[in-house]
Amino acid sequence: MYEGKYAILGTGALGGYYGAKLQKAGLDVHFLLRSDYEQVSQHGLIVESKDGDFTLPQVNAYDDVAKMPKCDVVVVALKTTQNHLLPQLLPPVVKDDGVVLVLQNGLGVEEEIADIVNQAHIIGGLCFLCSNKVGAGHIRHLDYGQITLGEYADGYAATGITERMQQIADDFQAAGITMELSTDLLLGRWKKLMWNIPYNGLSVVLNARTDELMADTYTRKLVEQLMCEVQAGAKSMGRTIGDRFFQTMLDYTVKMKPYRTSMKIDYDECRPLEVEAIVGNPLRKAQALGVDLPKISCLYHQLKFLDGRNRTIDS
Amino acid sequence: MYEGKYAILGTGALGGYYGAKLQKAGLDVHFLLRSDYEQVSQHGLIVESKDGDFTLPQVNAYDDVAKMPKCDVVVVALKTTQNHLLPQLLPPVVKDDGVVLVLQNGLGVEEEIADIVNQAHIIGGLCFLCSNKVGAGHIRHLDYGQITLGEYADGYAATGITERMQQIADDFQAAGITMELSTDLLLGRWKKLMWNIPYNGLSVVLNARTDELMADTYTRKLVEQLMCEVQAGAKSMGRTIGDRFFQTMLDYTVKMKPYRTSMKIDYDECRPLEVEAIVGNPLRKAQALGVDLPKISCLYHQLKFLDGRNRTIDS
Repeated sequence: MYEGKYAILGTGALGGYYGAKLQKAGLDVHFLLRSDYEQVSQHGLIVESKDGDFTLPQVNAYDDVAKMPKCDVVVVALKTTQNHLLPQLLPPVVKDDGVVLVLQNGLGVEEEIADIVNQAHIIGGLCFLCSNKVGAGHIRHLDYGQITLGEYADGYAATGITERMQQIADDFQAAGITMELSTDLLLGRWKKLMWNIPYNGLSVVLNARTDELMADTYTRKLVEQLMCEVQAGAKSMGRTIGDRFFQTMLDYTVKMKPYRTSMKIDYDECRPLEVEAIVGNPLRKAQALGVDLPKISCLYHQLKFLDGRNRTIDS
Repeated sequence: MYEGKYAILGTGALGGYYGAKLQKAGLDVHFLLRSDYEQVSQHGLIVESKDGDFTLPQVNAYDDVAKMPKCDVVVVALKTTQNHLLPQLLPPVVKDDGVVLVLQNGLGVEEEIADIVNQAHIIGGLCFLCSNKVGAGHIRHLDYGQITLGEYADGYAATGITERMQQIADDFQAAGITMELSTDLLLGRWKKLMWNIPYNGLSVVLNARTDELMADTYTRKLVEQLMCEVQAGAKSMGRTIGDRFFQTMLDYTVKMKPYRTSMKIDYDECRPLEVEAIVGNPLRKAQALGVDLPKISCLYHQLKFLDGRNRTIDS
């Protein structure tokens, strides 16, 4: 087992789950919290999980990165809508030769982080996880949990499998998390967008669950057309997603339980939507390379309107 | 004044308003009704209008086209979602050399009617009218009312101004309705779609009034992009809408009172949406001519989903 320290920036449904699993497996984990700090510093974390419930009565909790030790692996588990905080959060906590592990959705985050901590190594992780935070320091893990890792290099060049990736994967695997290693982070990100753009986007705009989107002829067709545009976006950056992958995604979604997407949950809770990371950045990347994605653009404008109005009403 | 008989097929917010105005001006008008037949045949029509309220205690009301006289001008004032009834409704009531006046939104209706009554002359009318039916035989006219007429010829060839158009315009003008005559019905229809597609469509998908769509940067941009696609659709059929017309439409909408579009009202009342006439037909016309309108297509699929679900819940 790797002897280094882990930092978890954002101890919510995702960061709280993975961080607790790592600590339970014996790793040295340090949690950054905001609203739940009092509760967690006194009572620790509770995880209800389909794989078995557990509690950690005592965890290393912080309400300020300045108080945290420098860590070998800093897990970014915030929502991307909080990424404007990263220039303040990352430098104090990342060791010079450390790793920033980005467990976020969407595209373009690794580039932003490379500008902030240019000595560190950056690894992206694509999480397939259904979990919710049901109370302060209280996580409910519903399903899945696997992570695909890929290392970031300038301009998202493919990197191969590095020793660092393998080491982190070993730690997570020791904690009971299924890990996959990818030689091409950018391809992995675009493949995940193939699901995230149509289902997250349409679930919010049409107030619909995944099963409703798949049962209706018109939205099913629109999902496929949006997937085609994601494929074109990937191609604009030199990544090929084969046609068979469409069918895999569609079949996978049909087989899922009726599912409220993460963006729909954020919308229903009047939280900011991850529109820029999931829809805006891929759209602009492709446009900058001369490839127009008109249906994704339509969805983007609709989501920006709904996000803006949703938070105006909330405040 | 023209001595002929008028038939009004569909005595609702639109047909009831124009028909009542014509009868009030002394014309011989015959009204087809369905649910309001009993009320109207006994008590006539009530019109509340910003131009002056009036009642018609007695009108020629029918619940069956077979009982109606053959008419010189048959006004189609149904919603396009009822157009599957036209093969039954039109032949009994249109004189051999008569006129069918189509006061409906969208594209392609004149062609369908030409197949049903191929001896008759067909004139399209683009109505700019805000009115509601507030009770059986009770119309509330809120604003506007003008009609632009254009005669239909095979394949929507431009026709010039015909004597028939002029005669009908004179009758309506005698009834206090502002009339314009167009030499090119198809151009007029596409120009009206320039407003109807973005505002009707987005008002339903985003649950928004026109002023909200104009106040937000993202939806205002999307409205403009949809207008560009309508312009491209018009061009595919050989009709040029100048760029200045965009600005006219945008300015006009900004100046309007906050407005719930007709499609949004239909949606809120769980009535079928005029998606095919307003969005589907223009989309398919352009596609058949090799011009893709991707954002309109996205909107179309979204509206079909919402329309289907809306009526499933209702029934």
